[in-house]
Amino acid sequence: MPQFLNTQDAGFEPAFVALLGMKREDSPDVDAAVAAIIADVRDRGDQAIIDLTAKFDRLTLTPETLAFTPAQIAAEIAKVSAEDRAALELAAARVRAYHERQLPEDAMWQDETGAMLGWRWTPVSAAGLYVPGGLASYPSSVLMNAIPAKVAGVERLVVVCPTPDGVVNPLVLLAAQIAGVDTVYRIGGAQAVAALAYGTKTICPVDKITGPGNAFVAAAKRRVFGKVGIDMIAGPSEILVIADGDNDPDWIALDLLSQAEHDESAQSILITPDAAFAKAVVAAVEKRLETLERRAIAGASWRDFGAVIVTRDLDEAAALSNRVAPEHLELCVADPDALSAKITHAGAIFLGGWTPEAIGDYVGGPNHVLPTARSARFSSGLSVMDFLKRTTLAKMTPEALATIGPAAERLAQSESLEAHGLSVRARLNRLNGGKYE
Amino acid sequence: MPQFLNTQDAGFEPAFVALLGMKREDSPDVDAAVAAIIADVRDRGDQAIIDLTAKFDRLTLTPETLAFTPAQIAAEIAKVSAEDRAALELAAARVRAYHERQLPEDAMWQDETGAMLGWRWTPVSAAGLYVPGGLASYPSSVLMNAIPAKVAGVERLVVVCPTPDGVVNPLVLLAAQIAGVDTVYRIGGAQAVAALAYGTKTICPVDKITGPGNAFVAAAKRRVFGKVGIDMIAGPSEILVIADGDNDPDWIALDLLSQAEHDESAQSILITPDAAFAKAVVAAVEKRLETLERRAIAGASWRDFGAVIVTRDLDEAAALSNRVAPEHLELCVADPDALSAKITHAGAIFLGGWTPEAIGDYVGGPNHVLPTARSARFSSGLSVMDFLKRTTLAKMTPEALATIGPAAERLAQSESLEAHGLSVRARLNRLNGGKYE
Repeated sequence: MPQFLNTQDAGFEPAFVALLGMKREDSPDVDAAVAAIIADVRDRGDQAIIDLTAKFDRLTLTPETLAFTPAQIAAEIAKVSAEDRAALELAAARVRAYHERQLPEDAMWQDETGAMLGWRWTPVSAAGLYVPGGLASYPSSVLMNAIPAKVAGVERLVVVCPTPDGVVNPLVLLAAQIAGVDTVYRIGGAQAVAALAYGTKTICPVDKITGPGNAFVAAAKRRVFGKVGIDMIAGPSEILVIADGDNDPDWIALDLLSQAEHDESAQSILITPDAAFAKAVVAAVEKRLETLERRAIAGASWRDFGAVIVTRDLDEAAALSNRVAPEHLELCVADPDALSAKITHAGAIFLGGWTPEAIGDYVGGPNHVLPTARSARFSSGLSVMDFLKRTTLAKMTPEALATIGPAAERLAQSESLEAHGLSVRARLNRLNGGKYE
Repeated sequence: MPQFLNTQDAGFEPAFVALLGMKREDSPDVDAAVAAIIADVRDRGDQAIIDLTAKFDRLTLTPETLAFTPAQIAAEIAKVSAEDRAALELAAARVRAYHERQLPEDAMWQDETGAMLGWRWTPVSAAGLYVPGGLASYPSSVLMNAIPAKVAGVERLVVVCPTPDGVVNPLVLLAAQIAGVDTVYRIGGAQAVAALAYGTKTICPVDKITGPGNAFVAAAKRRVFGKVGIDMIAGPSEILVIADGDNDPDWIALDLLSQAEHDESAQSILITPDAAFAKAVVAAVEKRLETLERRAIAGASWRDFGAVIVTRDLDEAAALSNRVAPEHLELCVADPDALSAKITHAGAIFLGGWTPEAIGDYVGGPNHVLPTARSARFSSGLSVMDFLKRTTLAKMTPEALATIGPAAERLAQSESLEAHGLSVRARLNRLNGGKYE
C-alpha cells in the first residue's frame, strides 16, 4: 500500500516533507572505479575499450568492429515489422515538428549610443548519445535525444550502445537511422563516456554527451563535465497526477502504474480533493497489479514510494505539486488550463484526462527526457537548445565608446585592472585628440 | 616571450595542437577535502559554517551575523564615491536592457490532429550567487550574475561573499543592492556552496548556484550539481584577437594584456595575416609590461601561455579561432561582420577596433560570465535562460488520441512497458465503444 495522506490531518506537513526528502535511489559509490576506467581509456585508448567491453559485456571487439557496419545495421533493421517501423516514423515526425519550433532566433539591434548589440546561435559540432543496453534500451529515447541534435544542426552525431553478450535491439538501430545518426558504437558504461569525451584512435571525441545510463554512466558524465557538455544527471523518475473526482479510476491507476513499471525506485503520486476517488484509484491499482506483466517492479515502486494525498481543493493540490516539482504532471481536471497556470515547477504537463503521460513518452511531440528527482525546480527537459550555444555580439562606434567608455575605465580602476582601463583610454585618446590624457 | 607560430612553417600543426591542449591550470585535487566540508555542513549546519569561516577567513561569526545587516550595508555603501556609483549604475542599466531582450516567449499551437502543444517558461524560485573575496572580488561580476536572475523573475536572490579578516568591498555591497539582491552572507568556500545547496537553520537553500570561485568552490559546485543547478565550472580564461595590419599595435597589446592581467594562467592569443604587425604588437606588449601595475601577473601569463600566430589570410585565422573556441574574440579587421559570420565557436565577439574586450567586462551590455577553457564549443555565457526553465505542454483531444494513440501503444509494446500501452488503450476503448478491445 502506498502512503495515504490528508492535508487536514495533524502531522501532514512533516509527512509531506519526509515524502519530498525520500531517498529513492541507493546509488552505489562507483566514483573511484569510474575514475580508473576514464584514466585507462585516456591512457590505452581503443585497447582499453576493447578490454572493458570483453569484461563487462562479454563481447570481443576489435578496432574495426567497435562500430556497426552498414551491412550489420541493414540486417538488423530488416527484422523490424512494418507496424513497428511505421510507429517509430510517426513518432519521429511528430518529435521533429515540435522541436523545429524550438529553434531560437538571432538578434542584433542598435542601442541609444549607436552601438550594435546582439547574439547569434550556432550548433555544437559533434554530439554523442548514450543509449543503455538490455532492459532499458528504448528506441524512443534514441529519437528523443537524436532528433533535437539534428534539428539544431549538429554535424556529427554518434550513438554508443552496449550490446551485452552481443545482443542487439534492432529497433534501436532503426531509430538511430530514422533520426539521422552517423555511427553506432557497440560499447557502453563509463568507458564509452570516456571515449566520447577524450576520443581514441578509432572514436573521434564529441563536444556534448546526452542520454540516460546507470550509476557508472552518471558518474562518468559528472567527471567529464567541463571537458565536454552533458545534458543532466538523471535520477529516479516520477509522475504526479492531480485529478478531480470526475475521472475513471482505472485510467488514473494505469497512468500511475506507467511510471511505476519503469523502475522500483520510480515514484507515482496522486493528489485529489476527492477522498472517495482516491480510494477508488488505489483499488484500481491493486486490481491492475494482479495481472500486469511488470507487476513485481510496479508493485514495489507503488508500495515503497507511491503516495495518495487528499487536499482541500485543487489550489492546494497545485501548491503541493510545486513543492514536488515533478518530472511528469498530469492535470486530469475539468479546466486543466486554469490549473496549469498555477504550476510553477514541472518538467512536462499533460493537460486533461485524454492525455495519458505515455503519449508524451512516444508520440506527443515534446521531449521525454525530463528533469527528474525534483530538478524541475531549476532545469528543463532536453531540447534543441541543448545542442546550440549563444555567442554574444557587441560593436562599438567611436561615439558609443566615448559615451560609455569612461564608466568602464572607472570600474576597471576600482577593480585594480589597469590594462582594462588603458585599453579603453588609448582609444578615447585617439578620439579626443589627447583630451583624456 | 610568447610562442610565435606561422601556419606556413613545417611543424605548425603539432605546435598548434600542443597550444590547444596546453594545461594552464594546476588545479589541486581538493575533492576529498570538499566532500568532508559538505558533509560537515549537512551534519552541523550553522555551527560548521561558523567554524570553517573562523578557520579559513579568520573571522568570528554567529548565526545572527552570518548576513550583513541593512545598517552594515548602508555604512559600507556610504564609502563609495559618487563617480563609482554612477559607473556601476550605468553598467547595471545597460546589462539590464540587454538581458531583458533575452526573455523567451511561451508557445502554444494546435497541430494537425487537433492536439494542443507548446511550452511555458518559469523562473527558478531562489538563486545563490558566489562572489569571491579578496583580489578577485569584482562588483561587475555581481551585476553580471544578479541582473539576469532578477530579469528572469527569480524571487529570492542571495549572495555569499567571504570577507577574510573582516575586510569588505563596499562596491560589492553596492552592486548587490543595485541589482536587487535580498541578502548577502559573509561566507565563502565550499562551506558557502554547501549551505546554499542544502540549507542550514539560518540559511535557506536555493535552487541554482552561479558565480566564479577557486578550486574549492568549483569542486563543491560539481558535487552539489543535481541537488541544485549550477552555471558552469569556470576554468582559466582567454582572449583571442584576430587583427589585420591596419590597427594601432598598442591598442591590440593592451587588449591582450587586459586578459593576461587577470591571472597567470590566463591566455592571450593574437592571430594576424600580417607578420610585421605581429612583431609590432609583441614589441608594444613588452613596452607596456615595463610599467603595468600588474606586470608580474600579466608578464607571466603572456610568457607562459601567450601566442602569436601568423596566417595566410583572415579565413585561415577564423578557422584556427574556431578550433580554439575562445571565451573572448576580438575581430579588429576592416569588415568584422563578414569575418564574424565565419566564427562557429566563441563565447563573445567584439566587432571592430573600437570595441575593446574591457567594454564587455563592464558596460557593453552582454554578460561577461562566459565559457572558458574551450567550452564555447558546447556552452554559452550566463543569461536569463540560466534562471528559467521550460515546462512542456501537451493536451490531447479524443480525436487526437485516436489518431496517434495506436502508435504509442505499439511502441510501448515493443519496449515491454505494458501499463504505458494500457493507459492509452483504456481511453481508446471508451472512445471507440470497445472497438480496440
